[in-house]
Amino acid sequence: MKLYDYGTAPNPRRVRIVLAEKGLDYELVQVDLSQGHHKTPEFLAKNPSGKVPVLELDDGRCLSESIAICRYLEAICPEPNLFGSDAYELGQIEMRNRQMEAELMSQVGISWIHGPIVAKKGVYKNIPEAKEVSDSNVKKYYERLDKEFSSAEYVAGPRFTIADITLLCSIDFAATMVDLKPDDTLLNLWRWHALVSSRDSIEM
Amino acid sequence: MKLYDYGTAPNPRRVRIVLAEKGLDYELVQVDLSQGHHKTPEFLAKNPSGKVPVLELDDGRCLSESIAICRYLEAICPEPNLFGSDAYELGQIEMRNRQMEAELMSQVGISWIHGPIVAKKGVYKNIPEAKEVSDSNVKKYYERLDKEFSSAEYVAGPRFTIADITLLCSIDFAATMVDLKPDDTLLNLWRWHALVSSRDSIEM
Repeated sequence: MKLYDYGTAPNPRRVRIVLAEKGLDYELVQVDLSQGHHKTPEFLAKNPSGKVPVLELDDGRCLSESIAICRYLEAICPEPNLFGSDAYELGQIEMRNRQMEAELMSQVGISWIHGPIVAKKGVYKNIPEAKEVSDSNVKKYYERLDKEFSSAEYVAGPRFTIADITLLCSIDFAATMVDLKPDDTLLNLWRWHALVSSRDSIEM
Repeated sequence: MKLYDYGTAPNPRRVRIVLAEKGLDYELVQVDLSQGHHKTPEFLAKNPSGKVPVLELDDGRCLSESIAICRYLEAICPEPNLFGSDAYELGQIEMRNRQMEAELMSQVGISWIHGPIVAKKGVYKNIPEAKEVSDSNVKKYYERLDKEFSSAEYVAGPRFTIADITLLCSIDFAATMVDLKPDDTLLNLWRWHALVSSRDSIEM
């Protein structure tokens, strides 16, 4: 398998962590988004949407969208289980992962798109008002998470799941690339962050 | 089972269609978002994020997030299959569903949030510039879909899946609530729309 990746992006990182959790071998191929290498005909043949990550199987078939790739990996290598076992747990972990995406990761994404690094490139229309709203949403959500972690060890229950991976990649990207590091006073959130970051599968 | 619903919203509609596809019985409970009934303590106990849909099981446990609910329903009632069977198909249908969400439904959502109906309520900060960008993205995506449907019968391959449900609910909401009806000239897109809308499970 080959994983088409871009070093600092939060979505390919989710896939790399799942690959490491499952101990799967693969070849990492860097696609330089800053040079537009995701818009070449060769890359668009692998993913017509022109985004990383893409997983290319040994038979040449390709999958894109991080969670779609991770779900494929869970199906070919079920252990350790990251998406749930029985019907309720499958739903509940999907729910928590979706909440981390819809309520935090997407807001971090808006702050990134309308922030200074992207604005310089001129690819997206820069709307500073949109960033003000999403910055505020992110900070409020960190506070909510901190309250939740006062009585919960992980995002989706008593064990590490894909929902923890999504939250970790969202926070680390927000902290390093968008100037939205959670406040030092959010002790429960940072306790969770240290717990999850200590796993062997976690790299920046 | 009880499904907490709001009539015109595109997300609960996805769940209603999956319930109908699978022939499952349930009680429908309307939550009047216009009256703030999704922010009452009773409802927040079912979903702390204060959103519909919520599925309440007979034992009182609740699931929210449309696709999480649908995945639970697929697990308790596997036929007809809507999410895929083997590993690659599970990944590929998830990929297509995610693309319909990320590349179309989320853009329709931005146009809705910053459109005239929501602006009147004053809940969200109205940013007309954001709506201009998302309107344009939606129209371009309709054209891309029309090209794709020139050689594809359904969104994710040769059969009806959750990805078709997501696309249908996105387009119908865009057309009726956001003034973003696909142009009449997009004949392949409308052929797909008629094909999918003719299923017994589909209601508005």
